[in-house]
Amino acid sequence: MNNGIQVLGISNAIVDVLAHIEDSFLAQIGAPRGSMTLIDEKRAHEIYALMGPAMEMSGGSVANTVAGLANLGGRAAYIGKVKNDQLGGIFMHDMRSLGVDVRLPPAADGASTARCHVLISPDGQRTLQTHLGACLDLSVADITADTVQAPRVILLEGYVWDAPHGPAAMAEAMRLGGEAGAVIALSLSDSFCVERHQQAFLDAINRHVRIIFANEAEIIALTDSSSFDEAMEKISDFEGLFVITRSENGSVISDKGKLVVQQACHVDKVVDTTGAGDAYTAAFLFGWTNDKPLQECAELGSRCAAAVIQQVGGRVEKSFLED
Amino acid sequence: MNNGIQVLGISNAIVDVLAHIEDSFLAQIGAPRGSMTLIDEKRAHEIYALMGPAMEMSGGSVANTVAGLANLGGRAAYIGKVKNDQLGGIFMHDMRSLGVDVRLPPAADGASTARCHVLISPDGQRTLQTHLGACLDLSVADITADTVQAPRVILLEGYVWDAPHGPAAMAEAMRLGGEAGAVIALSLSDSFCVERHQQAFLDAINRHVRIIFANEAEIIALTDSSSFDEAMEKISDFEGLFVITRSENGSVISDKGKLVVQQACHVDKVVDTTGAGDAYTAAFLFGWTNDKPLQECAELGSRCAAAVIQQVGGRVEKSFLED
Repeated sequence: MNNGIQVLGISNAIVDVLAHIEDSFLAQIGAPRGSMTLIDEKRAHEIYALMGPAMEMSGGSVANTVAGLANLGGRAAYIGKVKNDQLGGIFMHDMRSLGVDVRLPPAADGASTARCHVLISPDGQRTLQTHLGACLDLSVADITADTVQAPRVILLEGYVWDAPHGPAAMAEAMRLGGEAGAVIALSLSDSFCVERHQQAFLDAINRHVRIIFANEAEIIALTDSSSFDEAMEKISDFEGLFVITRSENGSVISDKGKLVVQQACHVDKVVDTTGAGDAYTAAFLFGWTNDKPLQECAELGSRCAAAVIQQVGGRVEKSFLED
Repeated sequence: MNNGIQVLGISNAIVDVLAHIEDSFLAQIGAPRGSMTLIDEKRAHEIYALMGPAMEMSGGSVANTVAGLANLGGRAAYIGKVKNDQLGGIFMHDMRSLGVDVRLPPAADGASTARCHVLISPDGQRTLQTHLGACLDLSVADITADTVQAPRVILLEGYVWDAPHGPAAMAEAMRLGGEAGAVIALSLSDSFCVERHQQAFLDAINRHVRIIFANEAEIIALTDSSSFDEAMEKISDFEGLFVITRSENGSVISDKGKLVVQQACHVDKVVDTTGAGDAYTAAFLFGWTNDKPLQECAELGSRCAAAVIQQVGGRVEKSFLED
């Protein structure tokens, strides 16, 4: 029953609310620059009231990757929870309009569709404040043979472990995916997320996950290392393929210690770093599921990451590879 | 009771849904390039389903102008109708976050907040498909001494004449504004709108309106002319100040035939023409209400129009005059 889906993403379905800020705003709301903080609805209202005019775009880390893969011409599917409200409708439209096979209908009840306040600093760094809303209701009941089917890759999002029923849902996805012959991939989301769920991530990597997407800080947190070199040394003991993005230093792929090194693409001006890692992952998986060599996957990743950081928002609206 | 408001805008309150398209898409949906078409909810759903991924931003012509004036540091107020739904909340936030004094609360019942599908062609031309929703409920009951107060200028939007109770509401605004000593200004919206409401606009201009904002096509339609020169000749007979934008040919202001000519600012790349006229109007009125000479008002207008067409969306998110 392999219906040709290259990547099924399972993640928090979020609409981004993007606004430019001065760094003093981060101090005012007590948010570490570049961090992702989970906030409740009351706090979300407070912060929104302090923010300037914003624009709205569908977002979410692995959801961005799924959209990016579809943008590249890949066959993608998605499991994530929105409510049947206006922002949920926007999220669903943006996925479906790219041809993504959306596996869950919007929920009739429960919390509103998730929002993430994306606060963009003048140098393009982004700081995230996420109100998970409907994402908190994702549960094992949503992960079935019908919704998972038999994709080539199932890409899980570390952030889902933050939801109360997220770990059980992810365990079921790994189990069903394994049965269906899917390769399990995991995006580590952010270093604070890794600190919150280090043992769960290590267990998943040791038992199910074959491809791990991370940045330097995340891999350091995962391996309890004090430096990137130490982390690289430690991951060479794992079975999985580690795909590690390093911002302006490009990326490096470690396959049990065998390295593939890729430079970053030239970027004229960093506008907004939102989605750089997600775009890299999309392009990497597009190449990988088309059986391209790792170097080519990494190079495509660099190109797409460069495209997304030269615009506002975590998804490229026009074709990724235009220009 | 002049509370220092420079401009009160009264208009359709709309959230824009912006997507890049190929011109063949316009042929597919039967929309003339560069036009604004009013569509009902069913048609709005149909077109949205055909559109690619989009981003959402508060919009609306005079609403953009009001936001732009506030962005420039002006004191602005706004009357327009949204529903108490997620998009209505976004519209209200974007206004209030700029310091705009919003005079109507969101409606508890009735149609959803208006959406405009902004279809952006590769050369930056935009074609609009508007579903007026809650805007259709604006009525004379919303226009009171309390909501109008005593601004220096009241800026009316031609599009409001398309709403069933719009003409009565605008008549009341002109009456109350006149009593309060406000200058009445009118933005003609688009040439098709002028054709729909030519006599009403001429009556308003002859009786109440002191400043008219228009582009070439609109002024030709208003005066039943066959050329721009003929239209310019005809408007010299009117009492009002005509402020006419001419895209890459800059702008010209006609004060009973006495002309002030302004060149357009250099633009590297036209990204999206949405809001160019609105931004010009904002800057012009900012200058005018600060008692600047017409030439200076026009020059500021050109600068702000150039800023807005080099980005996606009808409002500049950062300061208008940065860079």
